Amino acid sequence: MKTVLCYGDSLTWGYDATGPGRHALEDRWPSVLQQALGSDVNVIAEGLNGRTTAYEDYLADCDRNGARVLPTVLHSHAPLDLVIFMLGSNDMKPVIHGTASGAVKGIERLVKLVRHHDWPMETEEGPGILVVSPPPLCETADSDFAAMFAGGIEESAMLASLYRDLADELDCGFFDAGSVSRTTPLDGVHLDAENTRALGRGLEPVVRMMLGL
Amino acid sequence: MKTVLCYGDSLTWGYDATGPGRHALEDRWPSVLQQALGSDVNVIAEGLNGRTTAYEDYLADCDRNGARVLPTVLHSHAPLDLVIFMLGSNDMKPVIHGTASGAVKGIERLVKLVRHHDWPMETEEGPGILVVSPPPLCETADSDFAAMFAGGIEESAMLASLYRDLADELDCGFFDAGSVSRTTPLDGVHLDAENTRALGRGLEPVVRMMLGL
Amino acid sequence: MKTVLCYGDSLTWGYDATGPGRHALEDRWPSVLQQALGSDVNVIAEGLNGRTTAYEDYLADCDRNGARVLPTVLHSHAPLDLVIFMLGSNDMKPVIHGTASGAVKGIERLVKLVRHHDWPMETEEGPGILVVSPPPLCETADSDFAAMFAGGIEESAMLASLYRDLADELDCGFFDAGSVSRTTPLDGVHLDAENTRALGRGLEPVVRMMLGL
Amino acid sequence: MKTVLCYGDSLTWGYDATGPGRHALEDRWPSVLQQALGSDVNVIAEGLNGRTTAYEDYLADCDRNGARVLPTVLHSHAPLDLVIFMLGSNDMKPVIHGTASGAVKGIERLVKLVRHHDWPMETEEGPGILVVSPPPLCETADSDFAAMFAGGIEESAMLASLYRDLADELDCGFFDAGSVSRTTPLDGVHLDAENTRALGRGLEPVVRMMLGL
Amino acid sequence: MKTVLCYGDSLTWGYDATGPGRHALEDRWPSVLQQALGSDVNVIAEGLNGRTTAYEDYLADCDRNGARVLPTVLHSHAPLDLVIFMLGSNDMKPVIHGTASGAVKGIERLVKLVRHHDWPMETEEGPGILVVSPPPLCETADSDFAAMFAGGIEESAMLASLYRDLADELDCGFFDAGSVSRTTPLDGVHLDAENTRALGRGLEPVVRMMLGL
Amino acid sequence: MKTVLCYGDSLTWGYDATGPGRHALEDRWPSVLQQALGSDVNVIAEGLNGRTTAYEDYLADCDRNGARVLPTVLHSHAPLDLVIFMLGSNDMKPVIHGTASGAVKGIERLVKLVRHHDWPMETEEGPGILVVSPPPLCETADSDFAAMFAGGIEESAMLASLYRDLADELDCGFFDAGSVSRTTPLDGVHLDAENTRALGRGLEPVVRMMLGL
Repeated sequence: MKTVLCYGDSLTWGYDATGPGRHALEDRWPSVLQQALGSDVNVIAEGLNGRTTAYEDYLADCDRNGARVLPTVLHSHAPLDLVIFMLGSNDMKPVIHGTASGAVKGIERLVKLVRHHDWPMETEEGPGILVVSPPPLCETADSDFAAMFAGGIEESAMLASLYRDLADELDCGFFDAGSVSRTTPLDGVHLDAENTRALGRGLEPVVRMMLGL
Repeated sequence: MKTVLCYGDSLTWGYDATGPGRHALEDRWPSVLQQALGSDVNVIAEGLNGRTTAYEDYLADCDRNGARVLPTVLHSHAPLDLVIFMLGSNDMKPVIHGTASGAVKGIERLVKLVRHHDWPMETEEGPGILVVSPPPLCETADSDFAAMFAGGIEESAMLASLYRDLADELDCGFFDAGSVSRTTPLDGVHLDAENTRALGRGLEPVVRMMLGL
Repeated sequence: MKTVLCYGDSLTWGYDATGPGRHALEDRWPSVLQQALGSDVNVIAEGLNGRTTAYEDYLADCDRNGARVLPTVLHSHAPLDLVIFMLGSNDMKPVIHGTASGAVKGIERLVKLVRHHDWPMETEEGPGILVVSPPPLCETADSDFAAMFAGGIEESAMLASLYRDLADELDCGFFDAGSVSRTTPLDGVHLDAENTRALGRGLEPVVRMMLGL
Repeated sequence: MKTVLCYGDSLTWGYDATGPGRHALEDRWPSVLQQALGSDVNVIAEGLNGRTTAYEDYLADCDRNGARVLPTVLHSHAPLDLVIFMLGSNDMKPVIHGTASGAVKGIERLVKLVRHHDWPMETEEGPGILVVSPPPLCETADSDFAAMFAGGIEESAMLASLYRDLADELDCGFFDAGSVSRTTPLDGVHLDAENTRALGRGLEPVVRMMLGL
Repeated sequence: MKTVLCYGDSLTWGYDATGPGRHALEDRWPSVLQQALGSDVNVIAEGLNGRTTAYEDYLADCDRNGARVLPTVLHSHAPLDLVIFMLGSNDMKPVIHGTASGAVKGIERLVKLVRHHDWPMETEEGPGILVVSPPPLCETADSDFAAMFAGGIEESAMLASLYRDLADELDCGFFDAGSVSRTTPLDGVHLDAENTRALGRGLEPVVRMMLGL
Repeated sequence: MKTVLCYGDSLTWGYDATGPGRHALEDRWPSVLQQALGSDVNVIAEGLNGRTTAYEDYLADCDRNGARVLPTVLHSHAPLDLVIFMLGSNDMKPVIHGTASGAVKGIERLVKLVRHHDWPMETEEGPGILVVSPPPLCETADSDFAAMFAGGIEESAMLASLYRDLADELDCGFFDAGSVSRTTPLDGVHLDAENTRALGRGLEPVVRMMLGL
């Protein structure tokens, strides 16, 4: 049995801009990936709306700093074979920091946290890590989201290439979500059901390869 | 689709005193419960070794205070139909507090956190809550565990009746894990594979009833 | 007896730019409001210099994050009939975030904290909430304040209309402090004695209405 | 105008064991003290249920650690002429620490926080400090409270003499609340309306003396 | 050049029970060790009064939780060849936890923090670790200290043998400070100048051996 | 014996952009200062890569907020005769805040923390404080550093004059590190060995004067 952890934000949680609400379980990309990989792999979804890579945000009734919560999530689901990070969209908010460069540093911190984690069983070998760049933000007529993510379209467009370089440098796998999915103009950030399903399908090959399946 | 969250400690994580290691996925009680309930229910396991009800513990590379992490876990898996709390064993350590009374107060805080949570979708109605008292600690020849849980046998024996009273007072469901399972003398705290499976089978009827299935 | 909580920053504390110092108790707007409402209402002033809506600031010997301290203040003064929020000026500092949009999100978080608070007495019904937009910043010759609030004049000018929309959406009362008072050019942020008194008088009608007096 | 801050726990908040509920505003000891001192003194009540001297407690939706919140309260109400500390009862809970010695150390920390506070106005001279030992716990038939405060009757009986020594050593005023009031057997911890009023009356002379009135 | 970090509490800081005050720099054990090892070794002293192994203490104007501060100290002084831990005396206070077993768990956590630290330079190899058990507490006529450390004489007497077992298990060096020094009856906890010097001399051989000198 | 604390970031730690690595002990400015002052002065180096003046940064396995760690460092090395602050370079990162004005406020907070610290010995008189402005950032071909410090060249050029004004206002000593050293174009932020040595030599006269030597 292989275990895969999907650590992400609202794009992993399955935020549906229509409604708003949450996509059906079977439409979310971790579920699609689970379905594709079959019952010999256990895919665990840990998506949290508003999660940043490694920055504070006190605007919701939960801890959105991805770096502070990650060790607890790693511990809860160990032993792991693969950790997938798909984060960075919320870093594009100016009140967080709003820069591609800062998101890259945040992902680097998350990778280091996995590599240095004090696992519950001492003989534990660490999991592989797959860095996924989120699809770039797009124009939206939703003025609330447009203001919340001001400047995010340009910065998010740089994430794929910067994440790829980081993944190479840190010896992680890489996948560009923007190669198979795009954000909805309804709010400029999220994925509709078809696009989140497409992401799950798109991830299957690289995940299989990293798991040696 | 109904969603059930299992929020617990090493007895939910599946700590196996032989080894030590982790019980196979299919032996852990949340998996057994998932199997029993079928594919119309999504059972989510969030067990963390060492988790307390609502008390600090800096002895591991994760956040063991159940009250601080709960809101993030609720947010990540909302909308929920049922939350199952099986916590209190780690409260029996004298360095935490070592009292049945303190564990009850901790569970009360967790229930309140669910009831007052600011859910990601505003129209969300809160989930039902099932309080499970962990099986009492037992004698062990493991001197490390015996010292770590000094006095815990007596205090943990009181948890079932105190949790039952609390659950009644707060209008929660209640289940006594000690009615279907017992702790292993290997360390005096944990469940062997047969007992964790028995717990999953034992929980099925009350969970079905609370879910209206 | 009705109880009103005034939760704010230095404009509520009564920071006097001449001196600098603190306005006399009778000049501060919560005192003027108390005087106007009479002895059947208990007006409680909780103003803190530098308080933000929901953002960190480590530059003083106190906790300036309005969202972290609010639950303790709510608990201390419960049961409450009305909570008045007048915050956002300090959010205009670029080291905090410096955006009107971020201040609105902070106020939204504070409103949610009130709505979801776990009050000391369980039968407690929650208080009404009045959102007050602070008066816009103005030009100042004080170079220290001008640098500290760079860009704040334009952003703060948007607060009244954005707070009004938020208040409507969240079913809160709204009052525009800029309609009865203006900031002093001495530092570009604070109110002189006449203007803080004017604010207290200006608030009386809407507070009476919300209290049903 | 003199300003007096009353920093305490549920005995200052006015917790009424019948009900339970909160004593009427005019019955709480800070109000009685305000009435006795007249309009030239501003008495500010900051009582929080469950507040400890300087210890963590995650069992409520507020920050109960008296040492962490104090600087914010000092800042909010500065400039101050007198700070009254009436704390220690909650320290008697075994889950906190349950020792008279620990409560004394907590009060010492609070006194030091006042003495070293970085006040909002730099020319600020610090306030006088009055240490009040809470009335000793008494026997109760309430089994929940009896368990929560196990051992507290003996330990709390030592507080008056230990606080007096500490106050002398740190050059603070001292008052023994047990000299004018007693706890109710309804829960063994709190004051009924008559006793909280008696405490306000009892404090008047020492407060007048410390304020130089 | 070899670098040795001495991470400890008041026994490392050099608290002098007469006065009270601080021992002269040349009398403190890290200085004596530095003198003995010569200029090819850099001995860094990081002793903090009241530091625990891994437990909270809010009674002073500093962070006494050894586990929270350690990563910052490791980072500041990296690269390191040896880390010496001499902690546990403050764990003997009942308000902390007061048990030998808890101190052992705290030391274990500190060792794990070193082993899993994310060092500033990635090619960094981790330092050796020397666990030093503090000398047992002794009887004292100082009633304040006697109360603060109630029960500590018995518990602290167990530390040497428990720390030795832990050091063996975790592949660390071990030294029993009680074999060369004893605590002063002035307060029952601290070392006089002669005993702290003796500790420095006593540590030289094991430190030389661990450094390969 | 006089004691001097050097509280800084990677420029004090001795980060060497070639490699990267750490400058030899004898090349770092605190060591050069120690050598110059002789054995009657104890110079303590507390440099941490990435340390800010008073702002959060979760991107490394240590606490980079200078204001939160300072009290612990002060306590560990008390009694002190002089505290040297050389901080501000990391404040130039846009993800921190990126403004000269914010760095000045951070230094002000650090000065206040020293002035108000609750020292381990009560008769302690506080140390003198020397504020050192870091050398301005310069152009670099390193694209990672250039992005991480975008806008920092202009802002950092203002630090010397702003820090000088602050030091005057707060009655601290001042030294402009840019008057004797310059940053390396290898990364635009750090000092090469010659420049860090030059800084140590440059500081000697003002430190002697402030120590009365």
